[in-house]
Amino acid sequence: MKPEIGFIGLGAMGFPIAANLAAAGFPLMVWNRTASRAQPLGASGARIATSARDAARAGAVVITMVADDAALESLVLGDAAIARRLAPGGIHLSMSTVAPATIRKLAQVHREAGSILLAAPVFGRPDAAAAKKLWVCISGNAEAKQKVRPILDAIGQGVFDFGETAEAASVAKISGNFLIAAAMEAMGEAFAMAEKSGLDRAAVAAMLTQTLFACPVYQGYGKAIASRRHSPAGFSLPLGLKDVELVLRTAREVNAPMPTASLLRDRFVHALAMDRADMDWSAIALGARDDAGLKQE
Amino acid sequence: MKPEIGFIGLGAMGFPIAANLAAAGFPLMVWNRTASRAQPLGASGARIATSARDAARAGAVVITMVADDAALESLVLGDAAIARRLAPGGIHLSMSTVAPATIRKLAQVHREAGSILLAAPVFGRPDAAAAKKLWVCISGNAEAKQKVRPILDAIGQGVFDFGETAEAASVAKISGNFLIAAAMEAMGEAFAMAEKSGLDRAAVAAMLTQTLFACPVYQGYGKAIASRRHSPAGFSLPLGLKDVELVLRTAREVNAPMPTASLLRDRFVHALAMDRADMDWSAIALGARDDAGLKQE
Amino acid sequence: MKPEIGFIGLGAMGFPIAANLAAAGFPLMVWNRTASRAQPLGASGARIATSARDAARAGAVVITMVADDAALESLVLGDAAIARRLAPGGIHLSMSTVAPATIRKLAQVHREAGSILLAAPVFGRPDAAAAKKLWVCISGNAEAKQKVRPILDAIGQGVFDFGETAEAASVAKISGNFLIAAAMEAMGEAFAMAEKSGLDRAAVAAMLTQTLFACPVYQGYGKAIASRRHSPAGFSLPLGLKDVELVLRTAREVNAPMPTASLLRDRFVHALAMDRADMDWSAIALGARDDAGLKQE
Amino acid sequence: MKPEIGFIGLGAMGFPIAANLAAAGFPLMVWNRTASRAQPLGASGARIATSARDAARAGAVVITMVADDAALESLVLGDAAIARRLAPGGIHLSMSTVAPATIRKLAQVHREAGSILLAAPVFGRPDAAAAKKLWVCISGNAEAKQKVRPILDAIGQGVFDFGETAEAASVAKISGNFLIAAAMEAMGEAFAMAEKSGLDRAAVAAMLTQTLFACPVYQGYGKAIASRRHSPAGFSLPLGLKDVELVLRTAREVNAPMPTASLLRDRFVHALAMDRADMDWSAIALGARDDAGLKQE
Repeated sequence: MKPEIGFIGLGAMGFPIAANLAAAGFPLMVWNRTASRAQPLGASGARIATSARDAARAGAVVITMVADDAALESLVLGDAAIARRLAPGGIHLSMSTVAPATIRKLAQVHREAGSILLAAPVFGRPDAAAAKKLWVCISGNAEAKQKVRPILDAIGQGVFDFGETAEAASVAKISGNFLIAAAMEAMGEAFAMAEKSGLDRAAVAAMLTQTLFACPVYQGYGKAIASRRHSPAGFSLPLGLKDVELVLRTAREVNAPMPTASLLRDRFVHALAMDRADMDWSAIALGARDDAGLKQE
Repeated sequence: MKPEIGFIGLGAMGFPIAANLAAAGFPLMVWNRTASRAQPLGASGARIATSARDAARAGAVVITMVADDAALESLVLGDAAIARRLAPGGIHLSMSTVAPATIRKLAQVHREAGSILLAAPVFGRPDAAAAKKLWVCISGNAEAKQKVRPILDAIGQGVFDFGETAEAASVAKISGNFLIAAAMEAMGEAFAMAEKSGLDRAAVAAMLTQTLFACPVYQGYGKAIASRRHSPAGFSLPLGLKDVELVLRTAREVNAPMPTASLLRDRFVHALAMDRADMDWSAIALGARDDAGLKQE
Repeated sequence: MKPEIGFIGLGAMGFPIAANLAAAGFPLMVWNRTASRAQPLGASGARIATSARDAARAGAVVITMVADDAALESLVLGDAAIARRLAPGGIHLSMSTVAPATIRKLAQVHREAGSILLAAPVFGRPDAAAAKKLWVCISGNAEAKQKVRPILDAIGQGVFDFGETAEAASVAKISGNFLIAAAMEAMGEAFAMAEKSGLDRAAVAAMLTQTLFACPVYQGYGKAIASRRHSPAGFSLPLGLKDVELVLRTAREVNAPMPTASLLRDRFVHALAMDRADMDWSAIALGARDDAGLKQE
Repeated sequence: MKPEIGFIGLGAMGFPIAANLAAAGFPLMVWNRTASRAQPLGASGARIATSARDAARAGAVVITMVADDAALESLVLGDAAIARRLAPGGIHLSMSTVAPATIRKLAQVHREAGSILLAAPVFGRPDAAAAKKLWVCISGNAEAKQKVRPILDAIGQGVFDFGETAEAASVAKISGNFLIAAAMEAMGEAFAMAEKSGLDRAAVAAMLTQTLFACPVYQGYGKAIASRRHSPAGFSLPLGLKDVELVLRTAREVNAPMPTASLLRDRFVHALAMDRADMDWSAIALGARDDAGLKQE
């Protein structure tokens, strides 16, 4: 029989992942800050932990999928103390998108406590999570990675291993988000030039994403940016800014200038100045239209 | 029987296109500045024109695929006078990547001379041209576009129509080249951050181009940029700069700021300063490594 | 007695310079495209040339102060043919702000014709010209520079010699205009941050320009930018863009990336997109407020 | 008789300021983390506090001049608890360059404790401090500002009042540092273009700083940048980066994009990547030369 897994964080991403694990026959012990989110899983057989601390058991695996670095840090450094709770030998599989520096720091805390932290951030939105179509980046202790492999196979369509440095997968993950944002900005600029030159934005987007850029990122965001449909937010603009700032901070730590990331940061700040905080992060592409004096009627 | 087509410009792109037209049964009248390039086509049945002027016949179709705006202008405004030679009713199918402003100006010259200029720039490198896998963007007079459709079908895998404004296809074409350059720069930055963080560039490229960015541009250039293999040049760095400058100039005419294009221009200029003129345009991605203090051993 | 000087171009800058030369006792032979501009000088003793060609006499000095590169080129390469007219041994003192490449090319034309081109662009607005407070940058043939020295002393408060390379003074001149534009942009950004933080823009400008930046450029433009008073135009926005483009083009020729110049270019293009072509070039500083979502009521 | 002033932080800036206050007849109670720094002041009559806490007395004035935000925060929120120690009615005159957000937060802490925080950052290097040539920016409670006015008059050559919002002076201060850095970058770019065009960097710097930019910032840094003399560090490169990051963070809080600040940040990061951490912050100007492929022999 499969061993019980602790699962902390049942938000838009965490919930479908946990549900897939349950469906795959993994016994779960779930916890969420807003308790009601856990009910449906409880109804279908998962145990409900009484606290985050309770969800982490000695020698077991606990998965966390939380909002940001602060939330992750508090699970490890606060009362939940999951690094210590997992010892000896337990594995903390961290799926949140957080700063590599945070992973590095917390990995050390785990080591000292006698447990293991694996970074395992994922690519994919909630619908991809529900469809078991996530892509997982992973890094950390080799043996631990092998142990959690069946878990990852149950929730995604592929796993990419970035070696044993704790935070490597986290760097790979934010690299991906950066490339998406850069692509959105470039489309915003190209479509603004095309629009002011009298072309149909949608026709340009269609051509490019059926030919050179026939991949989901360009197709999905290209359509949104061409038609300027940025609501409802699939991934909110402030979260996008958070990720660009993670990139800049990480690049700063290793002394790597990233002018495109700097430009993106300015675009996100501009979008906030234009009251677009509730929009999808693709709304940064409106910046190029603003710059060109086009009204966002 | 199909009518004879004049074909001017048998360079790396023009030659395979002409060969495909010949193979498809179009009688050709070819001309190239360096005459020897025309011999193989002559050997397989094409007529060799005595001059560019000679290749353009009244009421016929002439295709041009030349190096730059100056070369195209000289065919129309110089001795060849192909706009006048084609009158009445001939069609000049211009496949070169040139400034939209050049097309606009030359289209007017054709109109006044009694002939028609169609912009029909293509996406694809020489190998794609040989394999009839080009993508064609077209714009201009509707009737003329219909007339040349069989020609386009014989050389590519798809045609995208951007309407009747003469230069529209040209805007679409340079938008595409801009997006490619922007993607290369973003990869250069991401991989530099990853490399300095201890990750394997190739692993990051492989992950991203098998998942979010599973399209040819990212796959081909991603591999080159990850491994820093920029020779031999598929598309040379100075030609890339030319295209980015076309974008900036076009955007300037319609008052659309494009900060990413400005950044790209700086990267190309840096690459020239580093003696990389002989490299592929993807070598602009080395700029991010230079910035990060990594040696290009 | 002083030798007669030809003077071509009696615009906002040229007229007061010519008037000062006349007042200093230099016999003048003046010409202006719009002839009426020459009348007041004629009234006070200057001879009126019948053409630009007529104003350039063999072995004499001719001063040109014209709008742009094209105007200067046409004086040399067109019917006026002043390089040839000045031969043998005459001196063309070019005071316009033009591309170094233009000076280089025209200097060669002069050499071949047997005359000498000196670049002598000036810093100062029309009021400074009237007050003999111009600063002159000069470069070219040493002997010729010595010969024209009394002329320069009669119109400005100082001369800076950049050696014998024909275009060197031109490079120095556009460097100065670039630094001014960069300072204006930086103030625009700083004041936007201060304003949104609740500070009084004028108080910030006053403090900075009485302390660290107690020099005319910051004081004059600082006040204008703080109070957002950009009309009437002392130096028009399109002329400012022209100069930034000269900088980028010159830097491009020597393969020197200038990211601040690229940013400035984008700001100028944005200003044009916002219909600010009639404003002073300091209006580029409004871009930072636009970016920050502040309304330009 | 003048009331005793507490003085915390006797570094390169704090020491000469304290010495000037002593010379002006203000009784001092000094404290420094490295106690030996306090000896010379003790020898000339100042009392040496036993702790930072000891230096802050009820109802008195305490001046702090410390390294960074963390140091300042620890004085207020840590064991020294100077906000509480000063109550009731004491004044904390904070002269360090710190984030406006830090001042805002600590001002609130003081209010709640019954004391007053005034932000009073200064412009000027240690030699200016010694010569009583500092410029002081001040903000906060009006009555308290009036009370400390004699103190400020004893250490500087001018005081600029930015109103009653606690952090306003801090915003003004970092605006100034930002403008200096922007000017240095612009000079770096202009001189690189000039150098590659064959001009003498020093000649260009001399001309510009005797004419348009005849103010200390341009003259001092212009000379250093033209001659590339960046050691020893008057103000170290990492401190410059700290200030640019304060600017970006402050601008971010009020949603004001600052592309020049973003560019500067990239330049500082590049300088660190090139092992220039020990140089003066003006060494960021080397970035433009690196970009242009010039060797920093």
